[in-house]
Amino acid sequence: MNQEMPARFDPERDLLLERVVDVPPRLVWRAWTQPDELKKWFCPLPWRTVECDIDLRPGGLFRTVMQGPEGERHDNMGCFLDVQENRRLVFTSQLGADYRPLPESMLAMTAFITLDTQGSGTRYRALVLHRDPADQKRHDDMGFSKGWSTALDQLVALARGW
Amino acid sequence: MNQEMPARFDPERDLLLERVVDVPPRLVWRAWTQPDELKKWFCPLPWRTVECDIDLRPGGLFRTVMQGPEGERHDNMGCFLDVQENRRLVFTSQLGADYRPLPESMLAMTAFITLDTQGSGTRYRALVLHRDPADQKRHDDMGFSKGWSTALDQLVALARGW
Repeated sequence: MNQEMPARFDPERDLLLERVVDVPPRLVWRAWTQPDELKKWFCPLPWRTVECDIDLRPGGLFRTVMQGPEGERHDNMGCFLDVQENRRLVFTSQLGADYRPLPESMLAMTAFITLDTQGSGTRYRALVLHRDPADQKRHDDMGFSKGWSTALDQLVALARGW
Repeated sequence: MNQEMPARFDPERDLLLERVVDVPPRLVWRAWTQPDELKKWFCPLPWRTVECDIDLRPGGLFRTVMQGPEGERHDNMGCFLDVQENRRLVFTSQLGADYRPLPESMLAMTAFITLDTQGSGTRYRALVLHRDPADQKRHDDMGFSKGWSTALDQLVALARGW
């Protein structure tokens, strides 16, 4: 698997969600990269993504605001590192626009979203790199697998309607 | 100037060293990107760069170890973000190999080294982005201007010998 991955997966520090979904890579890409579409699926309900900025280039800003059912608000800032249309999207919480260092975030991570055509669908992989095993565990305890998988279900439901 | 820069210069948060030196971009590039050459100029004497790893690609590790005259040791980890031969080198202290988040460093920064041909020499710009004015001031107080300028003098003296 590592040969195909854009980064080495370290089972001690990283988290990986891998699934095959029945929408093609170009629709997954569209859902990930168009702010108005991303807002429809990015947060597992009842949380919602209420704001989204995407400057789709290495060094471009990736910003979302998530809102909980009680009005809680999470601001997430990040920066795109690698942008390969319909194929790969890499971003980090450590940097903002123009790669400027950000203040310490809730969780330091870099995510690699990789899309491969599989039949008429997509082999979808979300690999998340952390600093250390403690951050891996924390992200896991925050519900990484369920959260990212539920969000992906929402993405697929959205894309099926296109 | 901003049109030519790879990132906006914010005078409230950033630091900029700009000089014209009399060696061409390809030699400045060589001094910056070959570990054995970088070790000869990267630290203002009497400090020395005693170790250097360079994986020259976006997402590649940039690591140096600096040693002081009393044996003090500073380990610096980083990651390349943009690599354009003889033209532009961008790296950050916030990430390591494969863009993995790093533990908090002594100073969070992203540096843009830009080389433009000027006559037979190079217009050399080192733009360093920080989180906030406090980090800018701290880096300035650490001797950014003098340190980076003295190191550049050492680079030029080295390259003149080639």
